[in-house]
Amino acid sequence: MESKFIVIEGLEGAGKTTARDVVVDELRRHGIQEVVFTREPGGTPLAEHLRTLVKEGVEGETLTDRAEVLMLYAARVQLIENVIKPALARGAWVVGDRHDLSSQAYQGGGRGIDTHLMQTLRDTVLGDFKPDLTLYLDIPPQQGLARARSRGELDRIERESLAFFERTRDRYLALAAADATIVTLDAAQPLEQVSAAIRRALRAWLASQEAQA
Amino acid sequence: MESKFIVIEGLEGAGKTTARDVVVDELRRHGIQEVVFTREPGGTPLAEHLRTLVKEGVEGETLTDRAEVLMLYAARVQLIENVIKPALARGAWVVGDRHDLSSQAYQGGGRGIDTHLMQTLRDTVLGDFKPDLTLYLDIPPQQGLARARSRGELDRIERESLAFFERTRDRYLALAAADATIVTLDAAQPLEQVSAAIRRALRAWLASQEAQA
Repeated sequence: MESKFIVIEGLEGAGKTTARDVVVDELRRHGIQEVVFTREPGGTPLAEHLRTLVKEGVEGETLTDRAEVLMLYAARVQLIENVIKPALARGAWVVGDRHDLSSQAYQGGGRGIDTHLMQTLRDTVLGDFKPDLTLYLDIPPQQGLARARSRGELDRIERESLAFFERTRDRYLALAAADATIVTLDAAQPLEQVSAAIRRALRAWLASQEAQA
Repeated sequence: MESKFIVIEGLEGAGKTTARDVVVDELRRHGIQEVVFTREPGGTPLAEHLRTLVKEGVEGETLTDRAEVLMLYAARVQLIENVIKPALARGAWVVGDRHDLSSQAYQGGGRGIDTHLMQTLRDTVLGDFKPDLTLYLDIPPQQGLARARSRGELDRIERESLAFFERTRDRYLALAAADATIVTLDAAQPLEQVSAAIRRALRAWLASQEAQA
């Protein structure tokens, strides 16, 4: 089977790190040797610079919503061209912690950035590059944020209001419903059940890919 | 008269710094007290970070054309919202060394970035904010680059090919011809003649603005 790009998405505290470990374990069981991890924003020296600027801001300067989304897309282009595409080209699989769906949900939904700008960024900046499979871990914001808070300090984005995260979740759910490559999983369940659901979804998808190949 | 945003544009070595001094002198003669300078990309702490990343790049990493233009627009939004608009609001005039026309010419013309993306960035990211007057100093690239080279080391963008600067100049000329707020001046003339032409153009424009007010 050709190498694939699989993305794990969801609000803070949805369990993306655990999901990643489950996905990699399942890929290994399936005989896939090389798996490259990516984390967005970030993953190249320039993209990590941009990640820091977006996550921490610059002291004394208000970061506008538009500059934020432009920097996130700049980081994404660098990661796609310099890391993800070369990895796929040499036969490695890529597992991403967040990708474009995060911008569509957080910046498009949460911050309410103009839909035309969000669509142009996705369609014109990224072109026809997109994940083969996205696992969206759906969780009520209050539950996810409680988990994230228990892990320590929150960054600039994680300090947003509950209403912001509700809008973000709504956009996640709407986009997932409209795209057959996105699988929505109930991440509010106990961890073992979430992990089992991820394994089932991934196995079914791998089987469907093999049937097509 | 309400405060205005005046931009000086042109290729490397076109004489933008001299032009700026002439513009400010002319504004002072006209009784305008506070003039704020801006330089793009840059002008806020975050925008200066982005300027450095664009001008110098990151060692060992190829900067894609798309990431470059997104970072330039991120810097521009920060400058407009945090510096230019507040200055105009308190009654200061703003004189800019480069603004959006540079991106349209260098990234749109020189690099050949998708026109739809360039238009969406301008129209959606910047909205209806635009300079009241732009003085475009037109110079053949070979002449301008010779001047720029004599000043010292060239940065990442200034090391581009002559063909790149020819495409950039062509886009400058085409956009200037289509926009009544852009005045094209022949910057290949001797310096005193260029300065005199700038004074004439600015006086005529100030008179027209006063007639309208």
